[in-house]
This record gives sequence, structure tokens and C-alpha cells, in this order.
Amino acid sequence: MYRKEIKVVDCTVRDGGLMNNWQFSDEFVRAVYENCSLAGVDYMEIGYKSNDKAYSRTENGPWKFCDEADLRRIVGNNKTDLKLSAMVDIGRIELVDIAPKHESLLDMIRVACYVHQTDKAIALAEAIQDKGYEVCINLMAVSKVNELDLDNALKDIAKCKIQNFYIVDSFGSMYVEQVQMLARKYRAALPGKTIGIHAHNNMQLAFSNTITAIIEGCNLLDCTLLGLGRGAGNCPTELLLAFLKNPKFKLKPIFQVIQDHISPLQKSIDWGYHIPYMISGWLNEHPKSSMEVMESDKKNNLVDFYLSMTEGSLLE
Amino acid sequence: MYRKEIKVVDCTVRDGGLMNNWQFSDEFVRAVYENCSLAGVDYMEIGYKSNDKAYSRTENGPWKFCDEADLRRIVGNNKTDLKLSAMVDIGRIELVDIAPKHESLLDMIRVACYVHQTDKAIALAEAIQDKGYEVCINLMAVSKVNELDLDNALKDIAKCKIQNFYIVDSFGSMYVEQVQMLARKYRAALPGKTIGIHAHNNMQLAFSNTITAIIEGCNLLDCTLLGLGRGAGNCPTELLLAFLKNPKFKLKPIFQVIQDHISPLQKSIDWGYHIPYMISGWLNEHPKSSMEVMESDKKNNLVDFYLSMTEGSLLE
Repeated sequence: MYRKEIKVVDCTVRDGGLMNNWQFSDEFVRAVYENCSLAGVDYMEIGYKSNDKAYSRTENGPWKFCDEADLRRIVGNNKTDLKLSAMVDIGRIELVDIAPKHESLLDMIRVACYVHQTDKAIALAEAIQDKGYEVCINLMAVSKVNELDLDNALKDIAKCKIQNFYIVDSFGSMYVEQVQMLARKYRAALPGKTIGIHAHNNMQLAFSNTITAIIEGCNLLDCTLLGLGRGAGNCPTELLLAFLKNPKFKLKPIFQVIQDHISPLQKSIDWGYHIPYMISGWLNEHPKSSMEVMESDKKNNLVDFYLSMTEGSLLE
Repeated sequence: MYRKEIKVVDCTVRDGGLMNNWQFSDEFVRAVYENCSLAGVDYMEIGYKSNDKAYSRTENGPWKFCDEADLRRIVGNNKTDLKLSAMVDIGRIELVDIAPKHESLLDMIRVACYVHQTDKAIALAEAIQDKGYEVCINLMAVSKVNELDLDNALKDIAKCKIQNFYIVDSFGSMYVEQVQMLARKYRAALPGKTIGIHAHNNMQLAFSNTITAIIEGCNLLDCTLLGLGRGAGNCPTELLLAFLKNPKFKLKPIFQVIQDHISPLQKSIDWGYHIPYMISGWLNEHPKSSMEVMESDKKNNLVDFYLSMTEGSLLE
């Protein structure tokens, strides 16, 4: 699948950090950066931009905050073609915390929001764009949003100045038909804008849902190395680049960083396909409870977890 | 997706046995049988039917042979709705080794063949059908077959008495478009016959390719518990039953047998998504070399394996 408009966003550090509070070594983050650059990846989402009022600096590593000094320690002046991205959550950051673009190593800022926060997200995103950044709006948990609320949000998005808007399968609950439907709806509602996809792998569908989105014309594609990310993780970068076949992408650096840095993490972090994540995805629920059980001594009590999640329902 | 014609074939013991020479305990095989029955699965493929001339009984467990005495020890007289299936390979069995149906606990026999063996497969399959069994023909490695050879094979299959014919993604190399194309081609060439799908998970696409096949009208669906199967494994039974939503399927017994018997095997058998399997699938190659490297002390040398597989090609 060769389409020059397609851009790949590796979110390994940002989404993977949800599993270890961003306690990555500098060596790890630098290896992701250098190898994503060698591989021809377009964007690296290196973390969240948050402020100290929202999160503790002792509990969370530097990539929860993405201070310029931390960025510079890893990427120098970033004399590569790899652009850097950070995500912001509504209410966890103030505009004053974001420097004008010419003072920052970040190229893109992505505003994550729930549907009821759409107006706030648009206001924040436009203000960030006015500071000189590329900007996305990532509407999370869309699998829980009803049609009327979604259509109203899309009308507001259509009118705003922001160019990039994401399909986000926060719970890993979407099958091909839902991705297809949303891609068509977003494209129809947002002519001229670029649509992205951020998929989770609870039902082993993150990669295939990303392929579906590509076929439906989405051009901003999120992925992570070996799928490292919250819970079941994400669309694997290695699979996505291998599929895309764009000659600018190189796989060897991707396998190098997986071999040296990502695979070894599997000893300490249990991301990927596991039955509790499969169950929460299938039920279209936030992965919170499945992550709790995976971190407890009950992680192998699959039947108990299944019953606790479906109790009182007619499912069996 | 509710369609009453859909039948689910759990191949855990047959395909999983490729990873341990069918050295499963009776307790394991009985738990798969009992829980598949409770879950409403339609068929359990319990192994291969082979003869002693083809394979050693010391190297291979009983499910490489599926003797009636072994079957009976597990399932008694099989007073359940779960039908039993065995696979045969051309040249590894003779017709005389297969008892008439009224003397056997097996309900279905599936003849696996490569495209150049199509005539032999039809002859064997028809003779087995004449003995009273349900029969399938599973054309393996179709991703390596050229269009002319495939069309000729389909013409022969169309004329034969066998009702069931499979799309088999032996190498786990197929993307959605190839599954779509083959399903449409098979259905057009074989009016009135039932088309099945057997997918491998090298690129995390076994489940989504099975969904694609369902959407395209395939009604015989192979799967294995937690994806246990050769190399990267198969479409997971739990995901497939959860997707199908047919009220006859129950998930609790599936999670029970995964919890008690399948998950514990992960300590000794390395099936599932691993980079060597991903590479062989992506390159449309037999998993032999990736399985060798996974069993060696080089299993973590991902870059070396990638270079050895792509040496001399223009891939990088």
C-alpha cells in the first residue's frame, strides 16, 4: 500500500509509558528515537505534555511532562526528519505551559478529549496551533459515543481550524465494520481534513483495523514497537511498515531496537494479548479493571474475571 | 454475526500438536473435548490420521495417529453434539487404514494437499466419503499458487463429490484483500459447496482474516484455544466465539480450559506472535526456518534472522 500522504506516528514511549509511569532509561528513549529516524518513521510521540499540578514528578518519569531540557538531552537539536509529538489531556495542562513553537523541539501536539470536551479541545487545539505547532484532535472512547453526540461533535470539528482528527479505539473494542463506518463518517463530515487511527489490540485487531482505516483513506497511522502500549498494546510498528511497502521505510532499524530494547521489557511489563484485556475489549469497557487484575495475583483466574465482568448480564 | 450455517472447527490438538509432536496428556485432550462440547463448538479436530509407516510412534504422541482405542479412551462413545475430525496428508495414509464410518468415532476427515496433489486429494476424499464420513479438502499454501494452477484445481474440485473446500493461509502471509479475493474466487468457482478458512497468525491477522472470510460467505471456521498452533498459531477460539454471538456458543467453558490447560503450556511452548514468525509470514515463506530459529539459542537475534531471510533481495 503506497500512498505518499500516509504518515506514521510511533507512540511507543507515550503509550508504552502508561504501563510503567514513563520510567524509561534515557538509553531506551534515545534508541527508539534513533531507530525510528533511521527507519523513516514520520513522527515519534515521545510522551505527554503535562504540568506539575496535574501529576507527581516522583511517581512519573520525564515523558509524562516532556520538558524541553529532557527532550534536548535525548535528541539534541533534532537534526533529523523525524518529527516529535506530545499528547495533552484537557485539564492537565494550561496554555501557558506550552512554549511558542520556535522555543520547542516538539513539532506536533495532539489534544486528547472525550466527546463532552470537544469544545474545550477545539479551543485548546486552536490556541496551540496559533503558537506554531501542527495539531491533532484525538476523540477518545468513540465506541461509547452515541450517534447524535458524535454528529454534533463532528459539526464543531468541521468548522474549526484544526487539520487532523483521529479515530481512537481506546478500549480495543472495534471490529472492521465499525472502523469502516467511522472512517466514512469522519471523512464525509470533515472534507479536506486528515483522518488518523489509533487502535488497541485487545482482540488482536489493532493492525487489521489500521489496514481497514488505510483502505478507507485515513493517512495518519499510530503504532508502537512490538505493540508496546497500554494493556493489550497497539498496532505494531514493524507490521505496519512492512505492510506499507513505501520505499522510505526501513525495517532493519525497527528489528534492531526491538531486539535490543523492546523485547527485553517483556520480562517486566505484561502488555499484549491476554484474556482479561480480550474480555474488556469485547465488552467495550475501559481497560482499567483488566489492568488491575493483570497486576494482581488473580491474573490467571480467567473464569472469575469473566464472570465478574459479565455478572447480571445475559452473556455467558 | 449470526448465520446458522456457520460451523466452528477447534483444531487445538491437531495444529497445536505440531509444536510438541502431540505429546499431550489424556487429561489435556479430555479437557479440550469436554469444554469445546460445553461451549457449543461444532467440530473438534483431535489430530491426524496417519499410519506407522509414515511416522514413528515413539517420536509422536497418539494424536498423530488417532487410533480408535485412543479416541475411545478420551471421548467414550462421544454422546455429545461435538463432532470429531481428523486430518490426513496425501501419502501418509492408505485407504485401508481408514475404517468404515460405522466402526469409527470420527465424523469428519479433512484431506490436506498441495495444488499439484489435487487429483490425488479428490480421489482419496471421495473414497473416504464413500466410507461414510463427512469430508473436506484443504488446499494448503495457496499463497504460493499461481492463478492458472489454482483455476485448474478449482475446476477439478467443482466437478468432484466433496462438499467442503478450504482457504488455507499456511504461512500466515495473507492480508484482507487476498482473503477477500480467494473467498470470492472459490465461491464463484464452486457454487453450492461450503467454503472454509484456516488462518495463521504470523502477522496478527488470523482472527481478522477469519472475519473477512465470514463476511465473504465462508461457513467453516477453524480456530484454536488461545491460538495454540504451529508457529504463530491460529485464529483464537475465544475471539471467534465472542464475535459470532450465536446464542449456542458459551464462553465460560472456553475460558475454563484456557485457564486450566492452555495458558500453563505457554511456559514450555513458544507459540504466538514473535518477530521470526512475523518475518516468515510477511515474506510468504514456510515457517520452518522461523521455527528453527525460535527453538535455537539465536531466537533473540532478530536482526540476523531478518538479514538471513532477505539476503540478496532488495528488501531492507
